[in-house]
Amino acid sequence: MNDNKTDKLLDGIFFPADLRRLPLQDLPRLCDELRACLIQELSENPGHFASSLGVVELTVALHYVFNTPEDRIVWDVGHQAYAHKLLTGRREKFYTNRKLGGIRPFPSPSESEYDTFTCGHASNSISAALGMSVADTLEGSNRKVVAVIGDGSMTGGLAFEGLNNASSIPNNMLIILNDNNMSIDHSVGGMKHYLHHLHTGTTYNNFRQRASQRMMQWGWINDNSKKRIIAFNNAMKALLNNQHNIFEGMNIRYFGPNNGHDVIELVRTLRSIKDMKGPKILHLHTKKGKGYEPAEKNATKWHAPGKFNPETGERICSNDKNQPPRYQDVFGHTIVELAKQNPRIVGITPAMPTGCSLNIMMHEMPERAFDVGIAEGHAVTFSAGLATEGLQPFCNIYSAFAQRAYDNIIHDVAIERLPVVFCFDRAGLVGEDGATHHGAFDLAALRPIPNLTICSPMDEHDLRHMMYTAQLPGKGPVVIRYPRGCAENTDWECPMQELPIGKARCIKEGKDTVVLSIGPLGNLAAKAIKRTEEEARKQGKELAIAHYDMRFLKPIDEELLHEIGKQFTHIVTLEDGVKNGGLGSAVIEFMSDNGYTPRVTRLGLPDNFVEHGTVEELQHIVGIDEDSITRVLSSLNQIQK
Amino acid sequence: MNDNKTDKLLDGIFFPADLRRLPLQDLPRLCDELRACLIQELSENPGHFASSLGVVELTVALHYVFNTPEDRIVWDVGHQAYAHKLLTGRREKFYTNRKLGGIRPFPSPSESEYDTFTCGHASNSISAALGMSVADTLEGSNRKVVAVIGDGSMTGGLAFEGLNNASSIPNNMLIILNDNNMSIDHSVGGMKHYLHHLHTGTTYNNFRQRASQRMMQWGWINDNSKKRIIAFNNAMKALLNNQHNIFEGMNIRYFGPNNGHDVIELVRTLRSIKDMKGPKILHLHTKKGKGYEPAEKNATKWHAPGKFNPETGERICSNDKNQPPRYQDVFGHTIVELAKQNPRIVGITPAMPTGCSLNIMMHEMPERAFDVGIAEGHAVTFSAGLATEGLQPFCNIYSAFAQRAYDNIIHDVAIERLPVVFCFDRAGLVGEDGATHHGAFDLAALRPIPNLTICSPMDEHDLRHMMYTAQLPGKGPVVIRYPRGCAENTDWECPMQELPIGKARCIKEGKDTVVLSIGPLGNLAAKAIKRTEEEARKQGKELAIAHYDMRFLKPIDEELLHEIGKQFTHIVTLEDGVKNGGLGSAVIEFMSDNGYTPRVTRLGLPDNFVEHGTVEELQHIVGIDEDSITRVLSSLNQIQK
Repeated sequence: MNDNKTDKLLDGIFFPADLRRLPLQDLPRLCDELRACLIQELSENPGHFASSLGVVELTVALHYVFNTPEDRIVWDVGHQAYAHKLLTGRREKFYTNRKLGGIRPFPSPSESEYDTFTCGHASNSISAALGMSVADTLEGSNRKVVAVIGDGSMTGGLAFEGLNNASSIPNNMLIILNDNNMSIDHSVGGMKHYLHHLHTGTTYNNFRQRASQRMMQWGWINDNSKKRIIAFNNAMKALLNNQHNIFEGMNIRYFGPNNGHDVIELVRTLRSIKDMKGPKILHLHTKKGKGYEPAEKNATKWHAPGKFNPETGERICSNDKNQPPRYQDVFGHTIVELAKQNPRIVGITPAMPTGCSLNIMMHEMPERAFDVGIAEGHAVTFSAGLATEGLQPFCNIYSAFAQRAYDNIIHDVAIERLPVVFCFDRAGLVGEDGATHHGAFDLAALRPIPNLTICSPMDEHDLRHMMYTAQLPGKGPVVIRYPRGCAENTDWECPMQELPIGKARCIKEGKDTVVLSIGPLGNLAAKAIKRTEEEARKQGKELAIAHYDMRFLKPIDEELLHEIGKQFTHIVTLEDGVKNGGLGSAVIEFMSDNGYTPRVTRLGLPDNFVEHGTVEELQHIVGIDEDSITRVLSSLNQIQK
Repeated sequence: MNDNKTDKLLDGIFFPADLRRLPLQDLPRLCDELRACLIQELSENPGHFASSLGVVELTVALHYVFNTPEDRIVWDVGHQAYAHKLLTGRREKFYTNRKLGGIRPFPSPSESEYDTFTCGHASNSISAALGMSVADTLEGSNRKVVAVIGDGSMTGGLAFEGLNNASSIPNNMLIILNDNNMSIDHSVGGMKHYLHHLHTGTTYNNFRQRASQRMMQWGWINDNSKKRIIAFNNAMKALLNNQHNIFEGMNIRYFGPNNGHDVIELVRTLRSIKDMKGPKILHLHTKKGKGYEPAEKNATKWHAPGKFNPETGERICSNDKNQPPRYQDVFGHTIVELAKQNPRIVGITPAMPTGCSLNIMMHEMPERAFDVGIAEGHAVTFSAGLATEGLQPFCNIYSAFAQRAYDNIIHDVAIERLPVVFCFDRAGLVGEDGATHHGAFDLAALRPIPNLTICSPMDEHDLRHMMYTAQLPGKGPVVIRYPRGCAENTDWECPMQELPIGKARCIKEGKDTVVLSIGPLGNLAAKAIKRTEEEARKQGKELAIAHYDMRFLKPIDEELLHEIGKQFTHIVTLEDGVKNGGLGSAVIEFMSDNGYTPRVTRLGLPDNFVEHGTVEELQHIVGIDEDSITRVLSSLNQIQK
């Protein structure tokens, strides 16, 4: 902390132009200040931590060498862009980061001209930067374009598609491969292995060693040939680098690996390659959490730590023992419980074992739980392959990221009715991660797909029942979607039972209005109904509002809907997803198709991207919180509020 | 042709078990017979041609060496699987290929136990096969799994995700890389370049040559050292192959490149590697169209040639000069016309330049039209990158393949309202390519996405107007979807004009019922309306059915819908997409939200996957052909048919 100093460099830096006026030798000090500032800010106002600390030097070097915003930096996954925010006019407002009305959780072109592209989902930076660089070539603007991508994001197919294309279109893009051997959890797969080999130089070193051994052995070289050996070695190295490195093999010039924490060296390297023509890649080795010891030791734990004491590293959490478990943990424990009974069950996650709690299964039965890397499409098709051989995959993906696997769900799973169980975590509003992360579209996008069963639990007991039901034989593909955060009850470990597919359950009988909800929002509806009825009673009216937890969006409970169509004049539908095409639409379609004409009020997410804030704030804004539901019910039943 | 011989080997082969009883030396003859059979069959019953001819030897070798169906072969893109069909119990029925009720256009597990996975969309074979192989490992079944993937499909990100994951999960999968330097058009990008280097051995040869030159030059070697040089060369080769090949670098053993047309050598190679543990890749060089000279010379033209004279290679087409142009050609010519006026326009296609007719632009202005390889997600994000720099991309993708880019459309384009124009070709029913290829979901899946404008032209003039309108400033992202096949009029070159966004057009006034259609199905509706009104007149009733071409699904014409809600008691909606969530749902939602209670009959695709057949046959089956629409209108208006 430099708090007691009055001559902080950072105080004079509001924009990158200020940074570029500093002498080179001041940059290490600035990096220290930035890092201290990040630690202080994030200890009070939680956000993504470890990844931002890892790129402090890189961020400073990039804005120092490149003429931002005229030159473009595209960050792959905006977690890492906090130092970038601090240097681009948002230091004063940084305390509002991720808060309602505050600065956005991820770089956003609408927020700052220094933010070039939307970067909430991984692996899109190379494709976007390639577009910018090709535009530059076509327009002759001589603008530089830099994509900064982590090794985790490099496992995404989109990154590979961009890389593959980068070599065949004229462009001058620079790709910075920020290699910290991590995405959120450790990165997995062949690319990691490949990069590791590039990094350690094992290949070249091995080759050199073995070649020279042979030469000695065969009497071709002796100690006097040193100069020639060096020349030969360099020739070999050049040949190896030119031809065999996958990047060079794809016509992309490769530099590195370099130390990503030596800011002065970084500046020199960037200066030396920035004007080179053609696509190029600079491979940097960095450490997540760099400069903050607790985070260096456990970057996964410090990915987004919440509030903490910056001096001690102690977490400041309201650790309420009586809080209900998170839905993700109910999933994580339940899949292990089910897998113990059903040997066919396997678990799959694309790079989110901690986020979805599949790590519990990975720990208990490692041979049956798979982290496949940042690769949502592959996660689904791989699950389909497992299912064809009689296994019962549970494929867990964050709802917003599952958009990446839309075709895989249709083409690889639904057509053949393969029994893959999709557990879509983070469905509905997710809060502070904002527009890119809300699981807003799953219900509406999946409902049109034939052969899918789609359900959402109102509480953790139903999540367990749905998981149990989905893995029974003959159920075909089942989507279970549930939100981020805590469930309803602390006694989550109920016995599991089979639910009838496509059947709703009655939460409360009634006659005046009926609420049809899906998912945990049903709990807010139940409270709103109670409040409305109590208010009515105070006003001398006897009100009985019916409430059904639909449980299944598809197949929808047609028997119930016939009853409702006949009995009710007012229906309220409630869902934590876009209104266009979701539960409300399904109910209206049914009523229309069957000649019923009730008034249907659809509550759900609007036809615009919802920003960031707490879940409660956002629910209020879009009108699906308890107050809003109460207001709708009161109004429909002419109750004064 | 062996028609005059009575002793054809093929006559005795109904299943792979029969094949496996043949002596090895008979296989070349069998391949000749198979090839002749394919040429004869496909000349009469059109289908995918060149790719199937290229894998005759591979198909025979695979079924000869592997114990199918117990061992699994996963074909990547089913085009190439015709020889596989002939050998797996479907030779007698092969004449029904792609026909209504006949065998399916692509391998289908529901059709044959030899078909292991759905393979209409490219690049999914490695992920699926990995799933099968991991299942084998878990179950201890000792079953072999082989994925056969072309070099074109290898550019798809999904293939890379599968490859990346293959190295980190225990499995014994064999990947056959069928390298013909083609997808449908020539394959593009770095992977092609990389494979080419592997193939020609340039790398190794270059290195060997330069190294030996140096050694000679430095006096290290002389002619007497031959034996040692060979040993050294082999050591170098081994080292290079072990460490630097991307596949080996990813822990996947690499074999090849081998000649894919030497069936006996193929059998030997497959036998030698089939029992090796761990993932492995065999790189084969094949020629599309192999064995049929016209196809060898121009594989793109012979991808799916239609009927032809097998002796001469002459195409048999009903070349009606007065036929209207295809929608894709109207797109292809119009984008060039627009690009001449608007220098910001660029064109993007993921590997379909011929299929979408962007090849016209690629020919006329090659620097402004990009084939990015089989990489739909990248095509969209790359377009978004171009758009951020002020260019006006037209991104053309087949509707069904655009499902691969669903997240890219949401996250990379819609959130920032980037002005990308999406031209989704092959929207709606596509006919003989069947369930995997129908563009059934685009309307319903895209409607929930905020900020999109979604439209579909009723004829080629409107396609031109929509393309013109979409590229005007400030329109944001626009989706234009249009079907496979021919447009309506031969005089397609009309002057282009701006259409008002979100406004329908009146095709015909009326009062009794109103038809709201989107897309070219509107032309069938117009005919059906005419027939119904004429029939009514014959029965002494004066009927006036209104008809609006909605043009825009989103934003929908609310002013018109208010008018309709007030005036009509019967609405018929008509769309070439799934009914759940599409135009019909949008109309019902509007009516419900605004308190109108007309009867709405929704015509569109059902909630099941539609099989293959001619477009007309399928339209009839799902009830959106002229007869079906006439029947609905007659019934609604109590007209006897």
